[in-house]
Amino acid sequence: MTSMIKQSSIEGFLDELASRSPTPGGGSAAAMMGAIGAALLSMVCNLTIGKAKYRDVEEELSVVLGRTEQLRTQLTEMIEEDVESFGAVMRAYAMPRQTPEQSVLRSQAIQNALKAATQVPLRCCRVCREIIDLSAVVAQKGNSQVVSDAGVAVLVAHAALRSGALNVMINIKAMTDRPFVAKQLTELDELLSQASVATEACYQSVRKSIS
Amino acid sequence: MTSMIKQSSIEGFLDELASRSPTPGGGSAAAMMGAIGAALLSMVCNLTIGKAKYRDVEEELSVVLGRTEQLRTQLTEMIEEDVESFGAVMRAYAMPRQTPEQSVLRSQAIQNALKAATQVPLRCCRVCREIIDLSAVVAQKGNSQVVSDAGVAVLVAHAALRSGALNVMINIKAMTDRPFVAKQLTELDELLSQASVATEACYQSVRKSIS
Repeated sequence: MTSMIKQSSIEGFLDELASRSPTPGGGSAAAMMGAIGAALLSMVCNLTIGKAKYRDVEEELSVVLGRTEQLRTQLTEMIEEDVESFGAVMRAYAMPRQTPEQSVLRSQAIQNALKAATQVPLRCCRVCREIIDLSAVVAQKGNSQVVSDAGVAVLVAHAALRSGALNVMINIKAMTDRPFVAKQLTELDELLSQASVATEACYQSVRKSIS
Repeated sequence: MTSMIKQSSIEGFLDELASRSPTPGGGSAAAMMGAIGAALLSMVCNLTIGKAKYRDVEEELSVVLGRTEQLRTQLTEMIEEDVESFGAVMRAYAMPRQTPEQSVLRSQAIQNALKAATQVPLRCCRVCREIIDLSAVVAQKGNSQVVSDAGVAVLVAHAALRSGALNVMINIKAMTDRPFVAKQLTELDELLSQASVATEACYQSVRKSIS
């Protein structure tokens, strides 16, 4: 895929995702999912701010909107960054290993590329964890006519967080720096542990308010 | 948004999603999420078929690939169809109601538009339920190097199913045809009831195989 995935069409992106090229793959998909969640929260904020009925929450939701738009920008960039970091891993694996010196250099390059490649999905996980919490605020205080959109946001952000986690796990599998791996797994566990409970609470509150 | 959302850029789609225009909204987002899931399953099939190691499952995964590509096409169309059906609801609400006759016509038009508008997210739910089951096949039999992508597929398909359900629920809220509403809710319950268990089973099997 050429550079600047964010400028490719929806149809083109899906075609590339489905193709036999390994990128864009699940890491880019997770970033796109997170960006969809952030965008939906922004929409609910935009459909709340300026309405007389919601004057009391206008200031709070303006701050939330500023944040969801920042997170959306970050996630949109990660669609591309995941492709780039995977490319670096592939290039490291393709390095020559005909001499012992080459083998050492190649192994070091692979380890460095894998470390860098875990950073994109881990950042995706952190950002999506924040989107889950923001979804609860938006679902509770935003325009009730579009509360289902806050529900969609929390569901897709949670799926993106768990998807990012799968991508961190598959990258650290071949890593030899055990303390680094342990640190990543500890952070992942923390991000995942309360996310399910927070997501279900928000989803059920949205279901209740629309039924 | 102009017609043919699938031809708009990723960035443009996210901007429209985030804007104060209510469409595209959660219904289109759910369809896009489902399309991402179908595309990822297609990718895993494409990276399995033709490889000597996976010759035994080649025929089965070719059939799966044919189906995931059909479902991807359907879901990509639903991104647009959801916007159109919401527009029809809005046009019905905007009809004049200055005379009793006008009021009756308007009410009938609203009810018809709402019925039609529940059909898109309900079809999205049905298709995503099927993607969840196909994810389990692909995760078990597809190329193990990209098994995490089957995991992302099942997570996003499940989020899309539950998101579609929220959109059905918000549409039927204002509907007066109670037998129709009951029928929709029964089908939704059936689609949702076993989806969580199937999704968790697939996700845990993917986690196990990459850790």
